[in-house]
Amino acid sequence: MAHIDLGVDEQLFPGISGPMRFRPETAKPLNELAEVLLRGPHTLSRGERELIAAYVSGGNECAFCRDSHSAFAAAQLDGGMKVVDQVVSDPESAPISAKLRALLRIAAAVRVDGRAVTAELVAAARDEGATDVEIHDTVLIAAAFCMYNRYVDGLATLVPADPAMYEMSARRIVERGYGAP
Amino acid sequence: MAHIDLGVDEQLFPGISGPMRFRPETAKPLNELAEVLLRGPHTLSRGERELIAAYVSGGNECAFCRDSHSAFAAAQLDGGMKVVDQVVSDPESAPISAKLRALLRIAAAVRVDGRAVTAELVAAARDEGATDVEIHDTVLIAAAFCMYNRYVDGLATLVPADPAMYEMSARRIVERGYGAP
Repeated sequence: MAHIDLGVDEQLFPGISGPMRFRPETAKPLNELAEVLLRGPHTLSRGERELIAAYVSGGNECAFCRDSHSAFAAAQLDGGMKVVDQVVSDPESAPISAKLRALLRIAAAVRVDGRAVTAELVAAARDEGATDVEIHDTVLIAAAFCMYNRYVDGLATLVPADPAMYEMSARRIVERGYGAP
Repeated sequence: MAHIDLGVDEQLFPGISGPMRFRPETAKPLNELAEVLLRGPHTLSRGERELIAAYVSGGNECAFCRDSHSAFAAAQLDGGMKVVDQVVSDPESAPISAKLRALLRIAAAVRVDGRAVTAELVAAARDEGATDVEIHDTVLIAAAFCMYNRYVDGLATLVPADPAMYEMSARRIVERGYGAP
């Protein structure tokens, strides 16, 4: 049971969806930020950006966000859940582009502390073809999931055990995006 | 110098203002979130909410956010910067209400890991009169500053040395809010 009364049946509104119903004023910018970062026009695919979100959430051991964004990544990525699981457990050996691997190293640093992002990590990503917008958005996706993860876990929201819940959410996100009813 | 070319004179647009000019699409929800959390209608005063932001940023050792939100808190709080400095360095001995102190303990837990927020910490805040919305917003303010701090430091943005810069920003925020040009 969550730390506060979210006013919803948590089985129907698990994870972040409970607090978002509880406080629609904050849900609006939280959804808009996810929509721009993970689904807006970009040179990184939606699947790649969801992969960064899943990887950071895995590092923070936020089960709800990790499993949600893993499902969202798998639904939009060649290789599906097999590649996603590999990235979440060990991006260094996963079959992804050198550019994405370099961006994930930046995301890993951000997750620990913004100051851990070194000029060398940024130069390495640039050497693999990463643009300034891609580097900026990688930093902000990683930072944003340090927020979403703490929001979900800090309120002790329900984590669905049934993988079908995450697949159902993935269909909704892929079709309608963040913040759709 | 920031890790990426923000396209602005960093002396004029230090800290988060550079990346916000670089990427207005993400600046919009980031500003809206700060506006709702720190300035929207609430039972906690604007000064108290800025104090939570300054305290979390201090814990994350993000100098730009700590000094910015300390100035914003001081401008809107009885006791001014003296009380703010006390809270940022040691909330346990600072002259604040027992309710705010209990909320700051929740914020400190969120900063480390959402899962560190215990039922006991929440019950203690409730015993001091904290409402569910106050507890929710404390968790989300703390989580959000774990994002803003990493965003600012992860891009290695400029930290102004002159306190007058923060006081100037405080006047703008107090008068016009977040996201105003």
